Amino acid sequence: MPPDAARRSDRSRLAILAAARDLVVEVGYPRVSIEAIARRAGVGKQTIYRWWPSKGAVVFDAVRALSEDEAGVITLPDTGDLEADLKTVLRATAVEFTDPTLSALLRALYAEIAVDPELATLYQEKVERPLTEAKLDRLRSAQRAGQFDPDADLALCLDFLYAPFTQRWLSRTGPLDDAYADALVEATLRAFAPTARG
Amino acid sequence: MPPDAARRSDRSRLAILAAARDLVVEVGYPRVSIEAIARRAGVGKQTIYRWWPSKGAVVFDAVRALSEDEAGVITLPDTGDLEADLKTVLRATAVEFTDPTLSALLRALYAEIAVDPELATLYQEKVERPLTEAKLDRLRSAQRAGQFDPDADLALCLDFLYAPFTQRWLSRTGPLDDAYADALVEATLRAFAPTARG
Repeated sequence: MPPDAARRSDRSRLAILAAARDLVVEVGYPRVSIEAIARRAGVGKQTIYRWWPSKGAVVFDAVRALSEDEAGVITLPDTGDLEADLKTVLRATAVEFTDPTLSALLRALYAEIAVDPELATLYQEKVERPLTEAKLDRLRSAQRAGQFDPDADLALCLDFLYAPFTQRWLSRTGPLDDAYADALVEATLRAFAPTARG
Repeated sequence: MPPDAARRSDRSRLAILAAARDLVVEVGYPRVSIEAIARRAGVGKQTIYRWWPSKGAVVFDAVRALSEDEAGVITLPDTGDLEADLKTVLRATAVEFTDPTLSALLRALYAEIAVDPELATLYQEKVERPLTEAKLDRLRSAQRAGQFDPDADLALCLDFLYAPFTQRWLSRTGPLDDAYADALVEATLRAFAPTARG
């Protein structure tokens, strides 16, 4: 693609993703349509269909884009200090989930996912899995560095780090602040320290 | 109340709670009405309003009733062995959440709670808090017995035990079986063992 066309195409893509996010917040996932996204983004419906097969695919790409860098890649910091890196990530996630617009977007999607198994699968594939892979990479690096139980069930570690956080956010049972982020990281590291098992 | 009237009243109460649960599964929380519950339970609307101020109050009492014994009390087993007791409770919870009818009921309520802060508060008060108190009692007893870090943040412990479980159930990312229940208990106990902190 010539540079100008590539820039235009990139601008369209970003406009579509932003429109999808805005519409979910404004009218709720069930009432969002490809047509409405196209209108809001100022592109033709066909432009959207060229890149995405369905409404759900656009919306979840829009969510995932929030965690990507400019090259479209998701990575976690790796300074060599696992505890510090995880605290950085969880504190940043806490800030994100406390943002009213993003929180409303994710809340609307969670409500749908809870009752729609197909949507749950799509969310899994588009958002959850790429994020999980990035997190697992960071834990594997810590295992290689001897900072983490080499036999730990890494999926369970991620559950420990993130599930309490998500639950607190969903049920509004307490603040998502630095102290909570740090406490989750510290307790998880105690559970999966290299020396934690007899 | 004379014994016969008390028995009748008890029967009505149980019929109302069962009707409320069935209706949420069948038509979804938003479409359940006090009238429909009364009709299904074979009682007058006034009978329901005598005991409950709102639809949400009936529905959440109906959910809580599933965790109560005959006297209306929620307690966790306390054999003196914390690990065994927690495994018993989490394995039983796994069986409950795998039951299709109960799972459908809770899923319908979670979807509403995620987007309705008032309903979230009512759920908190009617279901979550009594269950949490029973769980905290068991952990405090373990602290007194020296089986648990005396300085542990007990709310965080409960998050570790239950949030991964709830998340796995909500997003259908894996089986809720004995192995998972046991792994959650073991990792939580490692994180909050009496000797876990330097």
